[in-house]
Amino acid sequence: MPPMSELIVTIPPAPGGGYKIHIESGSLSALWLRIEDQFPKHRKFVVTDANLVAAGHLEALIGTIEVPTYIIDPPGEVSKHINTAVSIIEAMESAFFGRDSVIIALGGGTVGDIAGFAAAIFKRGIRVLHIPTTTVAQADSSVGGKTGVDSSVSKNAFGAFWHPSAVFIDPATLTTLDDDQYRSGLAESVKHALIADSEYFDYIEANVAGLLNRDLGVLEKMAYSNCRIKAAVVAEDPTEQNKRRILNYGHTLGHAVESASNYKLLHGEAVAIGIIAAGLIEQDLGLGGPERLDRTKKVLNALSMPLEIPKSIKKKDLLEIIKYDKKAVNQWPRFVLLEGIGSVLCRDGQWAHEVSRDVIEKTIDRLYP
Amino acid sequence: MPPMSELIVTIPPAPGGGYKIHIESGSLSALWLRIEDQFPKHRKFVVTDANLVAAGHLEALIGTIEVPTYIIDPPGEVSKHINTAVSIIEAMESAFFGRDSVIIALGGGTVGDIAGFAAAIFKRGIRVLHIPTTTVAQADSSVGGKTGVDSSVSKNAFGAFWHPSAVFIDPATLTTLDDDQYRSGLAESVKHALIADSEYFDYIEANVAGLLNRDLGVLEKMAYSNCRIKAAVVAEDPTEQNKRRILNYGHTLGHAVESASNYKLLHGEAVAIGIIAAGLIEQDLGLGGPERLDRTKKVLNALSMPLEIPKSIKKKDLLEIIKYDKKAVNQWPRFVLLEGIGSVLCRDGQWAHEVSRDVIEKTIDRLYP
Repeated sequence: MPPMSELIVTIPPAPGGGYKIHIESGSLSALWLRIEDQFPKHRKFVVTDANLVAAGHLEALIGTIEVPTYIIDPPGEVSKHINTAVSIIEAMESAFFGRDSVIIALGGGTVGDIAGFAAAIFKRGIRVLHIPTTTVAQADSSVGGKTGVDSSVSKNAFGAFWHPSAVFIDPATLTTLDDDQYRSGLAESVKHALIADSEYFDYIEANVAGLLNRDLGVLEKMAYSNCRIKAAVVAEDPTEQNKRRILNYGHTLGHAVESASNYKLLHGEAVAIGIIAAGLIEQDLGLGGPERLDRTKKVLNALSMPLEIPKSIKKKDLLEIIKYDKKAVNQWPRFVLLEGIGSVLCRDGQWAHEVSRDVIEKTIDRLYP
Repeated sequence: MPPMSELIVTIPPAPGGGYKIHIESGSLSALWLRIEDQFPKHRKFVVTDANLVAAGHLEALIGTIEVPTYIIDPPGEVSKHINTAVSIIEAMESAFFGRDSVIIALGGGTVGDIAGFAAAIFKRGIRVLHIPTTTVAQADSSVGGKTGVDSSVSKNAFGAFWHPSAVFIDPATLTTLDDDQYRSGLAESVKHALIADSEYFDYIEANVAGLLNRDLGVLEKMAYSNCRIKAAVVAEDPTEQNKRRILNYGHTLGHAVESASNYKLLHGEAVAIGIIAAGLIEQDLGLGGPERLDRTKKVLNALSMPLEIPKSIKKKDLLEIIKYDKKAVNQWPRFVLLEGIGSVLCRDGQWAHEVSRDVIEKTIDRLYP
């Protein structure tokens, strides 16, 4: 087994100082002792979902120890609703959990978002630990403190910035994901490389086979690179006043496509389409030639990502949805754009930019098959 | 008209720097221009309740301007539920409110708690302004950033620390409160004097008549003293790690009595009983003789506060409820205790103390008529 990799994230979480990200293949079954050791005085409450139970990960984590646990069922986006967060908190109250509690979120992005939000608002905030088990969660959502759930009107309507007290990543958990789930999360890795690190982009290009084979060495390297990039951006701008928006690269149209598909497209698949959209906008605005977009397309295609908007999704629905974008100003979103691989356009101190409705409509038109 | 009093609260609110508390009798009808002047770029959404509409305060604030408004109905604790916060946010979403919004909370403590919580969790946090219109809210809840709503299991189960961007206090709004509402809020003023300022306690003793007559000069002095004391404590310990707990003086049993009465007792009435309870505990632990408690009783009695637990409330219910106290450790709360008027007991750096179940039971017994 390789030595445990540790990254220190220098964001003041709530409550208490910075936090550590531990990365080690095969570590899941030894994590409970580590958690007991680090948080001896906190009552533990596990939030996970039915998929994690089926994959044996809950058992790997807690073994035969009796731990109060909330199992989100059905798993996935459909349960990422304010009602689920309310149910978790009412379950904790009924079991007399107080402020001296820690929620342990075992699962993918949805579990982390829901459990993190519950921790943020339970009795004005308790600790949360993330044990991300999907490609998306290990690459992205477990680091950075964004939490949120949907309302009956829109996605992520409720949320809080709430940093974990620790993150534990076991890349070996990725080997139990089905192919779609596994691959879709790789889009966030490509995004990180595009916005921050051209050498990491080269590495991904050169290791597509290892990625698809889920080679543990490649997965650890990826987890480390993703967390390093994300943590650096987040530490610079924890509450997304400006630069943190670069993490939203590919997400403005990506979120809209995901939503318009009624979540039949996975988050990573939608982001892949959003990344291509951003590339087309960049070309249109003279920010880069076709070679760069071709490289991006080639990598995403090799990872079996979709590069086009499914015909079943209507253009007018996409245009309607982006009005609700959290970063919208006067009901129109701003866009993060590259000036090169590993480098985001910053103009007048701004990292997200106005793009006219004409350009966006043209871009959407070009994304249909 | 006296000049506007301003206090600066040096707590970093989210988002942006410290905030100001404006205190001026008769200022309500001129506030909207002031708000437009201070927050020209933010879309405004008003949250208020049916009582405020009936009292004419909503009209005084917005005049004939068309402002999207959510009117909490029925007013009061019964609506302080997660469902109300959800409804407010879904109303804002449906009207395309985004992050560039500010919620203006016009009303008492309940309105402020609900609206502040909605602001804290809407799209990971937007600005909120408080315009408190009750004695409790002007003395206490509008300053300090505590927000929260109830679950179906317990009170304030959901919450966040979320500081306002400004607070506007018009003491003249207190003249429209009914007698019960008006007087009940005075308990928080007595609490502030007891924990922090013996001269302010002297002032209250000497001005009971002016208080009961709602003399605007006395009300302004009170609002200023309350905000000054509360802001200083909160600035020292914004997230209630330790010293801020002194603001909870009288509240541990007070909350339990309020809850056990099914909110038939007003918050301030319950707190008055809780203050007497704390005084009895202090005597029991040798922290003060009967003279001090007698002074407190005399002031609370002159303000027509109840000094005893109604017989309809069962002791075993109180003992059960305090297990759920947010500050409970191992299902038993800690108590804030005085060592003198204006001075809270601090032992080994701790501002809240273990008190045995025996002492608490004896105290409760002595509080029945």
